[in-house]
Amino acid sequence: MYGAGDVRVEEVPDAKLEQPTDALVRVVTACICGSDLHPYHSMPASEAGSPMGHEFIGVVEETGSDVSTLQRGDLVIAPFAWSDNTCEFCREGLHTSCRNGGFWAVGGIGGGQAEAIRVPLADGTLVKAPVGEDSALLPSLLTLSDVFLTGHHAAVQARVDVRTTVTVIGDGAVGLSAVLAAKRLGAERIILMGRHTDRTDLGREFGATDVVAERGDAGVERVRELTGGDGTHTVLECVGHMPAYEQAVGVVRAGGVISRVGVPQYEKAPVGFGSLFGRNITLTGGPAPVRAYIEELLPEVLDGCIEPGKVFDRTVDLAGVPDGYRAMDAREALKVLVRP
Amino acid sequence: MYGAGDVRVEEVPDAKLEQPTDALVRVVTACICGSDLHPYHSMPASEAGSPMGHEFIGVVEETGSDVSTLQRGDLVIAPFAWSDNTCEFCREGLHTSCRNGGFWAVGGIGGGQAEAIRVPLADGTLVKAPVGEDSALLPSLLTLSDVFLTGHHAAVQARVDVRTTVTVIGDGAVGLSAVLAAKRLGAERIILMGRHTDRTDLGREFGATDVVAERGDAGVERVRELTGGDGTHTVLECVGHMPAYEQAVGVVRAGGVISRVGVPQYEKAPVGFGSLFGRNITLTGGPAPVRAYIEELLPEVLDGCIEPGKVFDRTVDLAGVPDGYRAMDAREALKVLVRP
Repeated sequence: MYGAGDVRVEEVPDAKLEQPTDALVRVVTACICGSDLHPYHSMPASEAGSPMGHEFIGVVEETGSDVSTLQRGDLVIAPFAWSDNTCEFCREGLHTSCRNGGFWAVGGIGGGQAEAIRVPLADGTLVKAPVGEDSALLPSLLTLSDVFLTGHHAAVQARVDVRTTVTVIGDGAVGLSAVLAAKRLGAERIILMGRHTDRTDLGREFGATDVVAERGDAGVERVRELTGGDGTHTVLECVGHMPAYEQAVGVVRAGGVISRVGVPQYEKAPVGFGSLFGRNITLTGGPAPVRAYIEELLPEVLDGCIEPGKVFDRTVDLAGVPDGYRAMDAREALKVLVRP
Repeated sequence: MYGAGDVRVEEVPDAKLEQPTDALVRVVTACICGSDLHPYHSMPASEAGSPMGHEFIGVVEETGSDVSTLQRGDLVIAPFAWSDNTCEFCREGLHTSCRNGGFWAVGGIGGGQAEAIRVPLADGTLVKAPVGEDSALLPSLLTLSDVFLTGHHAAVQARVDVRTTVTVIGDGAVGLSAVLAAKRLGAERIILMGRHTDRTDLGREFGATDVVAERGDAGVERVRELTGGDGTHTVLECVGHMPAYEQAVGVVRAGGVISRVGVPQYEKAPVGFGSLFGRNITLTGGPAPVRAYIEELLPEVLDGCIEPGKVFDRTVDLAGVPDGYRAMDAREALKVLVRP
């Protein structure tokens, strides 16, 4: 990406091993993230450009001399942050704060929307999946890179369980994933706020019990009507813009939790007596440490218990990636799968 | 209080029963709260004035016909919010959001800095203490009205336990109470940020292992030095001003919790990627539902296990209340006990 709206497909030097802990991975499938649309809207024009993509499944082609758990030919899922999986933060399940880790497409690391990629700290980062690269499960497995586990993180941080009512704000792929995650954690009442019927229909399939199409004050009022005036115990905010934050404050029940996984496009927000403090509202969330969750959720994807891959509704090859961004931005596509 | 700095002692009509669920309580001891200093600084001049005080212990003088658990002569502790103790929110331990409850000194209810007071929903609100009105335990029992349990709420909401390191911001009576509460919950490392040596000395007695007198960036740097660069798992913010919030963000460890009990004197604050979101920081806290905690902590005060009443360092009679405000505001006194 060279700036807002400017996505190009280019030949770059081949990825290759640099550290003994690296693996070289051929990308089998990647995708475009809702968060990729933030720079697609606002990135200043740049001559250097930035590689893109932080979700991928691939096949190990080559491993550094210190890599011990992976072999050539392994099909692997890559979390959206790479990490050693051994430091104090990783052991606490906060791989996004790994002492030695980092993120794709920054600091000389490539992006996943590519043919191949160098994976640092490969033993810690990659998780093997026991399927072939032609498996029909690949789209659902790919959601373990980010989108489904980001929804899961929202629900886990909010402490969703059978006793909690839930509002999910946003009918994008993360919002729908959050619905599925909340349902999986036992929530019996899940209100999905979104106004794209094709998306909220998938939300209902994933477990939403109510859909609220209204936004702003009208949306808040509607959720309050649906909950006897109280709002819901948990609110999973899957958008990242200020109106979504304000809706979250409006619909959360006293003593409840707002859990954010949409990357905030604001720095300051209301947190004082009238918004959070007076009603003992907890604000939580952040980048999902998906590496902490993959092994737990993988079996349920493999046995077909959950099908989070249903969020993909378009597939492109590498040449089609710029149009994939356009289609997601225009809301023609919910989430675009990339098959290099 | 008739405005900033304007506290008067006046004869008012005697408190009397109004509802069958009321009790009439003669105040034995009350106190001045750090939060009373906020209007003492900023209250617009008013002809009507406002009664003051929300912490008191008293003796039941008379009960309404529907009051069943209290009798004339009972010594009772009043939480800083009155509540039915039976509604859904109270059953969840969030008495400050009681469907039928409210706060002292508003809406026609009197304040505790008085000779007597009408207590609404007396069965739900008041907790009997098995001591006489001359008991030496009264100051410590009085902290169960607010200050100690506000510190306790900060620690509980932050999920302080033996594995968590703790920073307490503020060496006022709430901050020192938060130190004591964190120690009681098992915390082994408690860093107290405060610069009044007489107060931080009491903080050390209550369990602080380190005292950081520096403020702002220097204070943040010092706490980070003390924690290997990481900050602490939990931060108990017991002040309420923006610099304290900013310090909290500066010293909290990735994945950690900022728990606020100082009433925020701001509405907006940084919560975006660079402050809370990027490091998965949780922001929690609010007015302490002290009624939910009194019965648990009462035995430990009665048997002398904890002595939270040590925060009182001055006693006044009703006539001395205006000077009590002045002394607390001037930081001559940490917390002022009132004996009407």
